[in-house]
Amino acid sequence: MPGKNTKLTILEHGARIVHKKGFNNTGIKEILDKACVPKGSFYHYFKSKEAFGLSLLDYYAGIFIGKAKQIYSEDGPPLLKLKRLFDDFSGIFASNGCELGCPIGNMSQEMGDLNTAFRLKLEDIFKMMQSQVMIFLDEARQRDELPKSTNTSDMADFIINSWEGSVLRMKALKSTEPLLLFDRMIFGRLLKGTPKKNNPKSGLLF
Amino acid sequence: MPGKNTKLTILEHGARIVHKKGFNNTGIKEILDKACVPKGSFYHYFKSKEAFGLSLLDYYAGIFIGKAKQIYSEDGPPLLKLKRLFDDFSGIFASNGCELGCPIGNMSQEMGDLNTAFRLKLEDIFKMMQSQVMIFLDEARQRDELPKSTNTSDMADFIINSWEGSVLRMKALKSTEPLLLFDRMIFGRLLKGTPKKNNPKSGLLF
Repeated sequence: MPGKNTKLTILEHGARIVHKKGFNNTGIKEILDKACVPKGSFYHYFKSKEAFGLSLLDYYAGIFIGKAKQIYSEDGPPLLKLKRLFDDFSGIFASNGCELGCPIGNMSQEMGDLNTAFRLKLEDIFKMMQSQVMIFLDEARQRDELPKSTNTSDMADFIINSWEGSVLRMKALKSTEPLLLFDRMIFGRLLKGTPKKNNPKSGLLF
Repeated sequence: MPGKNTKLTILEHGARIVHKKGFNNTGIKEILDKACVPKGSFYHYFKSKEAFGLSLLDYYAGIFIGKAKQIYSEDGPPLLKLKRLFDDFSGIFASNGCELGCPIGNMSQEMGDLNTAFRLKLEDIFKMMQSQVMIFLDEARQRDELPKSTNTSDMADFIINSWEGSVLRMKALKSTEPLLLFDRMIFGRLLKGTPKKNNPKSGLLF
């Protein structure tokens, strides 16, 4: 009999297999065999493979959003916390031998042209990821760790996009060097070296 | 009888189909039917599907490298020319309805974990792309359009990686906005606003 956790069990096993093999290349049966769940249970929770895939995207997104919220709730300067968010993911990739990559990026690559429901869901998920990053940047701006003129929406979007590209490069290189470079360029350059409002040198401009 | 251009014809048709469907999802027969080339000719030029795939990667890389070399050979400030290189690709993506994405990025995603020969070739190709971008940056540094302290190797790598991520995001969003954002962040911020060696204000530091 399907229990409260059966849906989650299917998603957890599905997430691992799809992350490795891709969505189209993964059969429902393979997931159910690994999860030790009968076929009927699957269709109790998901009306189709597409519906399952859309839930899987929410599951993947929840990992990023959950970690971002948890780190944001801790004490510390917002930019340092944001750096830690990406450093934590770098650590996970390193421990996985730089394989698999970002499931959201992978799904965008695989499904972006093939299925409109997936594409729209991915668009929403990227927007949610951007909003989470923007919360850190907005607090940094409010604390004068970033100039008041910073377009935090643009900055957050660019951070997400360049992170996705760095993870893609990591997968080809089988090294976390692209993630370390992301760290140096985003936190060492792009979010640094800008004058603070209360920096006395800024007064020269007025 | 296979002519001098038969190999190129196979690569051209293969490039289009693989770009659209992915490498594993494309059959040799499909390419040969489109190219109107008999099976024997294929195996005259490529000893296996893998050998064909590796040649295809060179073919894709040649499009980027060729355009970069052509634009670099023209007159004008190096950073403006580098911007034009990416703007030209943005224009191509826009005219393709933001579909397909970067074939090198796609292949990294699809094959990066599956085939070592592909992965090593992709690693080389990314290095070649980075070297091409670095040529523009080195000239800019030499002309004092970038500070002498600029690490052009790091910068070129980050430009390539963030471009790949922006193209991936474009595919999910079906809009060139991520490419325009790349342009604003790389050329409007990261490669701008840095003090020139002969900027009199720099003297304040000594």
